Amino acid sequence: MSYLGVGVSPGNVPVYHGTSLKVIDRRVRLAELVLRILTCGLALLCVVLVATDSQTKEFFSIQKKASYTDLKALVFLVVANAIAAAYSFVQVVRCVVSMVRGNVLYNKPLAWLIFSGDQAMAYMTVAALAAAIQSSVFAETGQPELQWMKTCDMYAKFCNQVGEGVGSAVIACISMVGVSCISAFGLFRLYNNKGKSDARW
Amino acid sequence: MSYLGVGVSPGNVPVYHGTSLKVIDRRVRLAELVLRILTCGLALLCVVLVATDSQTKEFFSIQKKASYTDLKALVFLVVANAIAAAYSFVQVVRCVVSMVRGNVLYNKPLAWLIFSGDQAMAYMTVAALAAAIQSSVFAETGQPELQWMKTCDMYAKFCNQVGEGVGSAVIACISMVGVSCISAFGLFRLYNNKGKSDARW
Repeated sequence: MSYLGVGVSPGNVPVYHGTSLKVIDRRVRLAELVLRILTCGLALLCVVLVATDSQTKEFFSIQKKASYTDLKALVFLVVANAIAAAYSFVQVVRCVVSMVRGNVLYNKPLAWLIFSGDQAMAYMTVAALAAAIQSSVFAETGQPELQWMKTCDMYAKFCNQVGEGVGSAVIACISMVGVSCISAFGLFRLYNNKGKSDARW
Repeated sequence: MSYLGVGVSPGNVPVYHGTSLKVIDRRVRLAELVLRILTCGLALLCVVLVATDSQTKEFFSIQKKASYTDLKALVFLVVANAIAAAYSFVQVVRCVVSMVRGNVLYNKPLAWLIFSGDQAMAYMTVAALAAAIQSSVFAETGQPELQWMKTCDMYAKFCNQVGEGVGSAVIACISMVGVSCISAFGLFRLYNNKGKSDARW
């Protein structure tokens, strides 16, 4: 029983005696890796699509340029997804090293660190996405009650590219939420072990 | 070992042999109850504050009324918090019954149901809050680049009350995230038990 224990390695976790359980564990780790790669790639795609997006229009000889920096929500989306992409890249490396070496130390403090990081990333990307979608809706439809005009009529190309970026962020976000559930599983199943095994993987 | 097993009751979980572990378990359950009550109360407060908020102004003999329905993000905030309050109320009742009876069945399907519900509520309240904050920032500061005017200069009383509602929603949201971590703990520690005990609590 190691309810309060620290330094439990994953070697202590798979006290499985059935082959099917090992298979399930391998599938969970593979799902984690795939989801992290998906998060990393799509969050990066979102950053590139939104941050490089701009459109210039001329109104009576005055040039006006639309850029993601015009909307704080888009800046938040870019920053949040850049952080999520960098974080996911580090985690992908950790997952690959763990799978290749097979006997990586996986203690409770590390599991808590990964769990906390994943939770923070998941909620951050959800918040950034919600704010960006809210702003995009205003830009697309306007808000007549508040005299907020539509801007996507003028900057159609800019808005379309932002839409693609938001689309990538949606899938990245769903993957991140999935990853956070897997890391919660990875952490909390370390609790309530009745005993320890010396097996390593 | 019940990695794939269903129908594991919480009686199987506390295979604790130390009193301190029982104390910790009681504290976790108490923390869950307190957080759920906090979520329920503050989400309800947010609903009342935002949904009852309105202010009428007269512009050249034309009356204009500001209401939360003018902003879809505030409607989303009210709906999300109403759902979270109702859900938390049901969960508070479940927690109290579980604590009073002491031998409530707590099997894996139920634990999965609670975990899924808590995750959905946590992400929903975070998304609603982020969208509402984004809209509130536009209303408070405007967005000169897009010719979106400030509206809080005209409807100061309305905006203040929305601000109080958003404040309640922030704390409700943090509590909900805490609750979702506790239910993840409650679910995933059911996995990887090496044996079963007949103890009930």
